[in-house]
Amino acid sequence: MIKARLFTPGPTDVPPEVLNEMAKPMFHHRTPQFQAMFAEVNAGLKKMLMTANDVLTIAGSGTAGMEAAIACACRRDKKVLVANGGKFGERWVKVAKIYGLDVDEVVLKWGTGLSPETVREKLATGQYGAVVVVHSETSTATACDLAAIGKVVAETDAILIADCITAAGVLPLRTDEWKIDITATGSQKALMLPPGLATVAVSEKAWKVIDTIEAPCFYLDLKAYRKSAAKNDTPYTPAVSLIRGMKVAVDTINAIGIEKVWSRSALLAKATREACEALGMKVFSQRPSDSVTGILYPPGVDDAFRKTLKAKYGISVAGGQNELKGKCFRVSHMGYVDPIETIGLIAAIEYTLAELGVEVEIGKGVAAAARVLRDWA
Amino acid sequence: MIKARLFTPGPTDVPPEVLNEMAKPMFHHRTPQFQAMFAEVNAGLKKMLMTANDVLTIAGSGTAGMEAAIACACRRDKKVLVANGGKFGERWVKVAKIYGLDVDEVVLKWGTGLSPETVREKLATGQYGAVVVVHSETSTATACDLAAIGKVVAETDAILIADCITAAGVLPLRTDEWKIDITATGSQKALMLPPGLATVAVSEKAWKVIDTIEAPCFYLDLKAYRKSAAKNDTPYTPAVSLIRGMKVAVDTINAIGIEKVWSRSALLAKATREACEALGMKVFSQRPSDSVTGILYPPGVDDAFRKTLKAKYGISVAGGQNELKGKCFRVSHMGYVDPIETIGLIAAIEYTLAELGVEVEIGKGVAAAARVLRDWA
Repeated sequence: MIKARLFTPGPTDVPPEVLNEMAKPMFHHRTPQFQAMFAEVNAGLKKMLMTANDVLTIAGSGTAGMEAAIACACRRDKKVLVANGGKFGERWVKVAKIYGLDVDEVVLKWGTGLSPETVREKLATGQYGAVVVVHSETSTATACDLAAIGKVVAETDAILIADCITAAGVLPLRTDEWKIDITATGSQKALMLPPGLATVAVSEKAWKVIDTIEAPCFYLDLKAYRKSAAKNDTPYTPAVSLIRGMKVAVDTINAIGIEKVWSRSALLAKATREACEALGMKVFSQRPSDSVTGILYPPGVDDAFRKTLKAKYGISVAGGQNELKGKCFRVSHMGYVDPIETIGLIAAIEYTLAELGVEVEIGKGVAAAARVLRDWA
Repeated sequence: MIKARLFTPGPTDVPPEVLNEMAKPMFHHRTPQFQAMFAEVNAGLKKMLMTANDVLTIAGSGTAGMEAAIACACRRDKKVLVANGGKFGERWVKVAKIYGLDVDEVVLKWGTGLSPETVREKLATGQYGAVVVVHSETSTATACDLAAIGKVVAETDAILIADCITAAGVLPLRTDEWKIDITATGSQKALMLPPGLATVAVSEKAWKVIDTIEAPCFYLDLKAYRKSAAKNDTPYTPAVSLIRGMKVAVDTINAIGIEKVWSRSALLAKATREACEALGMKVFSQRPSDSVTGILYPPGVDDAFRKTLKAKYGISVAGGQNELKGKCFRVSHMGYVDPIETIGLIAAIEYTLAELGVEVEIGKGVAAAARVLRDWA
C-alpha cells in the first residue's frame, strides 16, 4: 500500500474532482451542451493566461500546439530564431527545419536561458520573422526572462512564440502585458489534467502573419481552429472528457487566483532547493525554474536513486537527459502537488540517499523545507 | 486547492482503488455473482482477523455489530462485565442496560485500560457470563492488553466480546490465538472504507451461548446472519457497493500482510508521539494506542487549533470528548494514511501552533518524525 505520487514534470497528479468529472457519461460534441461548456473553458483559459487573445484548444500533446504555432506563424521570407537550451528547444529547431524554415539556432549552455540582449541584437538586423523560446526548459529545470524577451520582440515586426508548456499555471505569465504573441500549453502539467490537450493563445499581431501564410499542414492549421472557436466549436472531434476535466481544473485555478498559485509553486521550489542544499546537494540550473527543480546527485549516486524512490516510497521523479543522464533528478512543483507531500518527499529523498550510502543527517532536509513552507497557507 | 486529508480516527481516507470499485454499476444481491464475491470477502476477513470463526457482515455501523454481540451473546442468568474507560465503553454499558442485562460497569480512569488482573478477580466469582472490552478506546487513544484478557477469559465459561472497531487492521489482533469470542469491526476505520458495514466474528464457544438465548431483536439477531452466511448470503439486503469495496480493501491488506500493516501503523504512531513531544507537547494516554494518538494541547491552546489545521492546511483531526473537550487533539494512524503525509501533518501542526502563539522551533517536530519513520518502507 505504497501510495503512488507523481513529482514528475508532467504528467502530474490529477485532482479527484477532475477525474470524477472526466468519468461522467459521454455526450456529443456537436451540441449546444458542448458549445456552452467550451465557451466557459475558453473564458477560464483567457483569465488564467491573462490574455484577451483567442485561446485555441487542440486534441494533442503540447508538441502539437507548438508545431501548429511554428508551422503556421513563421514568415517564410524571414529567419526564425530558435533558442535551444535543452531537449525542448532542440525539438522546436527540428520542427522548424521540417517545415523548411530558415532557422537561426541559438545554442545555449544547459542551465542558462536565452538572454533578452541576444534577442535584441539578432532582431536589430531586421532578418527575423519570429522568435521561438522555451519559458521553462524542463530538461534543464531552467526558466528564461520571458517578460524581458517579450518587451524586446514587441518593439519589432517579429512575433514571439513561447513554449509555456511547463510554465503556464505555475510560473508568472502575463500573456498580454508581456506581449507574448503565441503561448502554447499542455494539459498534463500545471493544468492538472491527463495528457491529450494543447492550447495555443494567438495575438492579433500573430494572426496578421498567420493570415499571410498558406498552412503547410491540415490538422494543425490554426486558422481552422480560429474559425471554429468563433462558434465555440472545434474543427475536428474534440477530446470531450479532457475538455470537461479542463473546465474543472481551470475553474479551480481561477477560484484560487492564478497569482496565488504562482507563489505557492515558487515556495515549493524554494523549499526543495533549500532542503536539497541542506543535504549537501547542488541545484543544476544557473536560472532555476520554479516549475521544476533539477538537483545534481552527490558523488557515488546514480539513477538507482530514482528506482529506490519509486520502489520503496512510491514517488516518481524525472531523471536527467543527454549530458545530465544519470547525473541529476528533477522534481515538479506544478499543479496538484502540495506542501504536505513535498515535505514528505524530502524525507523520502533523505532515506534514499542514506540507503545508497550517502552520509545524511536524517531530518535536516525536512526541517529546512518546513521552515521555507511555513507561510504557504 | 488545499487537499482534504482525514487524520480522524474514523472516517479515514479511502483508497481510489476502493472508491473506483464502489463506483461500478449495481448488480443484484440474490445472485451467484454476489455469493461468489461474498465468499471471497469473508475468506479475506478471516485471514485479516486471524480466525477460522464465522465472520458476519452487517449493513450498519460498528455500533450495530457491538449491539448484536451484546444483545445476542450475553447470558441472562449471569452478569456482564463492561469496561468503561471512555466514550465507547460508556456506550456498551448503555446498550447492555437497554437489553436488561445485569451490568457490572468497571469505570476506568481515562487513559488507562482494563487490567487482566481485574478480569481474573471478577470472573473468579463465577458470576459472569460475558466480558465486554474496548480494544482501542478511541476517545482516550488508549489500548488495553487484549491478548492477556483473552487468556484470562478463556480459562472460564464466560465469553469475551471485544470492540475492535478502531483496532482490527491496525493493532496486533490474533482472534483465535488470543481466544477472542466476538470481535466487532467497523468499515470506516483501518478497513479503509466509507462507513456502513460492521463485521462480527463469532467463536464456537460464543455460538453455544447464543443458541441458548432467544434474540431480543430482529435485524441484529446474529443467528439469522449465521444461517445466511452458510449460503454466502445475508438475511436482509446487503450494502453491495460497500461489500465490493471491502473485497478490494481486504485483498489489499492481505496482499501486504496484516503484520506489516500493524508495524507500519505502530511506526506512524511512534513518529507522531515523538514529534509532538519534541515540540513540547504531551501524550495523554498512559497506554497509548498505535491506532490513534491523543496529544494534550500546550497551555493557551484550545480547539482553535483544529479549526486552523483544517481551514489552512486541509487536515482533519479529532478533538477531545467529555473531560478532554478542548484539551487535546487526536490523530489517526489507521488505514490509508501514510508516512509521507504524516511527516507533512507534523509540519502543519508546527505552523498551527506557531500561529496560535506557541513558541515552536519550526522543523524540530518533522525532523523527529523523519528519524522515526526512516525504516518504514
